[in-house]
Amino acid sequence: MLIAIHAGAGPVSSDLERHERESREALLRALSTARDLLEHGAAAVAVVAAAVEILEDFEGFNAGRGAALCSDGTALLSASIMRGFDRAAGAVAGLRTTKNPVAAAEAVLATDQVLLIGEPADVLAAENGVEQRPNDYFITEYAISRLREELTAESRGTVGAVCVDVNGELAAATSTGGITGQPPGRIGDSPLIGAGTWADARVAVSCTGDGEAFIRAGVARYIAALVEDGAELEQACARAIGCVSELGGTGGLIACQPERAVCMPFTTEAMPRGLWRAGADPRVWVTDSE
Amino acid sequence: MLIAIHAGAGPVSSDLERHERESREALLRALSTARDLLEHGAAAVAVVAAAVEILEDFEGFNAGRGAALCSDGTALLSASIMRGFDRAAGAVAGLRTTKNPVAAAEAVLATDQVLLIGEPADVLAAENGVEQRPNDYFITEYAISRLREELTAESRGTVGAVCVDVNGELAAATSTGGITGQPPGRIGDSPLIGAGTWADARVAVSCTGDGEAFIRAGVARYIAALVEDGAELEQACARAIGCVSELGGTGGLIACQPERAVCMPFTTEAMPRGLWRAGADPRVWVTDSE
Repeated sequence: MLIAIHAGAGPVSSDLERHERESREALLRALSTARDLLEHGAAAVAVVAAAVEILEDFEGFNAGRGAALCSDGTALLSASIMRGFDRAAGAVAGLRTTKNPVAAAEAVLATDQVLLIGEPADVLAAENGVEQRPNDYFITEYAISRLREELTAESRGTVGAVCVDVNGELAAATSTGGITGQPPGRIGDSPLIGAGTWADARVAVSCTGDGEAFIRAGVARYIAALVEDGAELEQACARAIGCVSELGGTGGLIACQPERAVCMPFTTEAMPRGLWRAGADPRVWVTDSE
Repeated sequence: MLIAIHAGAGPVSSDLERHERESREALLRALSTARDLLEHGAAAVAVVAAAVEILEDFEGFNAGRGAALCSDGTALLSASIMRGFDRAAGAVAGLRTTKNPVAAAEAVLATDQVLLIGEPADVLAAENGVEQRPNDYFITEYAISRLREELTAESRGTVGAVCVDVNGELAAATSTGGITGQPPGRIGDSPLIGAGTWADARVAVSCTGDGEAFIRAGVARYIAALVEDGAELEQACARAIGCVSELGGTGGLIACQPERAVCMPFTTEAMPRGLWRAGADPRVWVTDSE
């Protein structure tokens, strides 16, 4: 059993430093909740959803409350989730009112659809009992100040989780508010199965970084195809991240396999992240040098 | 030089038979236009866009005018396009008013974004001079009758094109109206780079079929990864289509490489499709047995 989580990849910024202590606490809360669930036999897909909800609720990360704001000052939220053993997937893009976007993605996973966009996705979430909030709920003073200062480089983060449950089954989930100042309607890799999120029987992946480069590299599906063809996880992740770099993008990802292999590569200065494995203590890291 | 096109994969239905002669004519028009452009040195990305626009304009195919209708009776249009040599990509999902969705995707390709959803995507297209129409323009009597009769199985088709230009460069494009009776907001694989559409320096792919299964199989990116690792195109396509079948889906795809390798596999009874190669006559096919 293991759970790995991330909360975006970017520079060592004032944003990061301002929130560092609370960020580490939020990562530990997510790991702790995930561990409890895993030790009680919860399925991987429920565990990644629960972990990501905690990261969404912490306003220091760019997902759920505290998300980066579009150029028109609104929050536009997206998320996806995928279950490894049957490749069931759910994704939502362009949410405005769902408190926990990953819960909306989980609601879509239970339907015949995979991706719902816009208001119908909020409506489906609400019909499934997922809490709704006015768009103002997501908008923090700090996010407004970032929009005012056009600190786009600092807000490319997303949050995500990958997991191996007690049965050796995998899941992955990712959630984001996008990029500060993005045009309304712009969607990155986070809600795209195969770009920002993937899980099959062999590997689970959640990405963060320059969304457009991650889409154009098809990062998560690329890693899975390489692993299927016999590549080591570390080598597959390195090739995928290399592909993003060739396209001029930076970022990171977390990936795991049933045999407890875990990779958490990133090409930025920092990627707040955490890992818990059965029998060990939860650990969190922020920068590369730790 | 070559251009391959498709117009959906499905059963030999009354829908198909009703439109067969005009469908073949539309496919030939698209091939003929593409050939003229290619012979005049046009770039692959412009050629696939032009071919797909012709397929969108023909109301017998499920893209642009004549698209399948959502459960609320409206048309919801999506498309994507990708250029091989630099992997530039553009995609739009949930359009309501852009006459040629692939032209909107091409407009996004020219921006820093890759995927725009909803009204902002229509607005960007309009700002780039792409013709707009009221949503009624897309809604044909025939599409209304299909919605009334819930003929969902007959309307999974999309249209798409892959191309090798005079410089040996690749591009792919895909456009769709989705599934008859789909919930508003439901998006399939067609606008998703890596699922329904892909182009890099080695291979270009455009898919059609059960969108959810194609997303969960990550078809287009999977083929590209296998080809990069040395698989023959035919073998890579077979593995990807096999993956869709394992997930309970049917459909087809067109794929090509610079060395003039072309594959057009499908697991349905029919997939209207066409091919032109430099030095040969354009050809079109509809069923498997032709």
